[in-house]
Amino acid sequence: MRTTAENAELALLLEVAGTPKPGNVDRHREYPDLRFEHFLAGAVGARAGFELAAEGERLGVAFRTAVDGMSDQRGGNTQFGAILLATPLVAAAGRGDLSPERASAVVRETTVADAADFYRAFEAVDVAVEDPPEGMEPLDVRRGSDAVPALEERGVTLTDVMERSAERDGVARELTGGFERSFATADALEAETGPVADRAATVFLDLLAEEVDTFVAIKHDRETAERVTERARAAREGEVDPETLAETFVAEGINPGTTADIVAAGLFVALERGLDV
Amino acid sequence: MRTTAENAELALLLEVAGTPKPGNVDRHREYPDLRFEHFLAGAVGARAGFELAAEGERLGVAFRTAVDGMSDQRGGNTQFGAILLATPLVAAAGRGDLSPERASAVVRETTVADAADFYRAFEAVDVAVEDPPEGMEPLDVRRGSDAVPALEERGVTLTDVMERSAERDGVARELTGGFERSFATADALEAETGPVADRAATVFLDLLAEEVDTFVAIKHDRETAERVTERARAAREGEVDPETLAETFVAEGINPGTTADIVAAGLFVALERGLDV
Repeated sequence: MRTTAENAELALLLEVAGTPKPGNVDRHREYPDLRFEHFLAGAVGARAGFELAAEGERLGVAFRTAVDGMSDQRGGNTQFGAILLATPLVAAAGRGDLSPERASAVVRETTVADAADFYRAFEAVDVAVEDPPEGMEPLDVRRGSDAVPALEERGVTLTDVMERSAERDGVARELTGGFERSFATADALEAETGPVADRAATVFLDLLAEEVDTFVAIKHDRETAERVTERARAAREGEVDPETLAETFVAEGINPGTTADIVAAGLFVALERGLDV
Repeated sequence: MRTTAENAELALLLEVAGTPKPGNVDRHREYPDLRFEHFLAGAVGARAGFELAAEGERLGVAFRTAVDGMSDQRGGNTQFGAILLATPLVAAAGRGDLSPERASAVVRETTVADAADFYRAFEAVDVAVEDPPEGMEPLDVRRGSDAVPALEERGVTLTDVMERSAERDGVARELTGGFERSFATADALEAETGPVADRAATVFLDLLAEEVDTFVAIKHDRETAERVTERARAAREGEVDPETLAETFVAEGINPGTTADIVAAGLFVALERGLDV
């Protein structure tokens, strides 16, 4: 039987293996500077952090260890959001209770030290984020450890950081809003039949058709992201071949990363609950 | 920097990601009952055994742990040969000397206990092997732990087992013959340019064109295996598109597993020597 950390790593691998996952790197599509193999190495590197989370290590330390390990490849940010979402789930599973309540409690119990680790994790990898609102420049995550004194002065915990980002960022919204889509994704993956990677691709399209991908909204703009949702809906309803949509999105540089993060989190939950590969 | 065990796991993942790798499961091709995702889970499961090997645990224990972990998926035998080949290399690297000499010494130093572990590993998974020669039935590996008393009585070490199989089995030949092709594969991977998974596919075809794949010889017959070598040669020389050859081999159920095992071993050596992903 796989350990919790093994399941978390496998979830990252199965997520990237599912195809077609319109716009994202998958088994059949990649970008010249962001390749399938970078995701393989990213998943391998993340496991040490998942092991810490499963053993009960502080969330920030586990997260930062996973991101440091993930970054040991040349593609840059492969699975930052997926790791951020999976780590509290792994911690909850490690405590023997993989429930939305327990995972939410793990996030709620974070401290300023966890926020500092989260900020330091940004030094390992270049992550797309929006400019901070006015007056919040000292807390810009892209400042990395330079922002830590400001965090400490203001007593900002990791939950605080996530709550401030929840409106614009789908991963932060999961972390502070009860992991609703992650667990719904696990249910959906269990309800599908066939190879797990194929299920992941199907569920990805459903999620993309259901809600705006915040990574696309940040990297492009809100309008583009809304249009992506509509196009995903058309593909799900059979008006467009998902394979064609995948080609188009890759050509347009549209990669719905937040939706992929949620699929990875859902895969982890499903694997822990016994989904067979 | 990745640990030795992480590199070994990543080597298994990069091996299966390379495409086209005529006849084998790769990123673009799979069999209905042996899928890409089974190899992902197999690699994840093998790592715990690689960790033991890197820490200096007895070879048989490390190997058996890796195979047990690998088997925790529904595809059956995904990477038995690759693990058998990689484990002594991992052990050598763990001792700070990843050389053919050191890896060979690891194999030479094995005992009857290691042979017993090797036999027990066959209980976790169904591996294609030939019938034993006359008089050797008590030592048929397919007997698993039932054969252990016979091993003990005759004082058969793991090296002995490998030496007896070296003529028919390419992995055993590597283990007892100085890991020649594994290290040559690492050199070839380093000499290529481009993404690592693409290099793995190129080198795979070169290896297949160079020497008969013993897994094909065992599963089909010597003649089929020789014909596979010729067909690989034609593909390498541009007479046949490797993609076409891949489709044909999959249709014929020809999967040159031993050649894939050597690619995985070569990937591990190259990663340890610093090949960037």
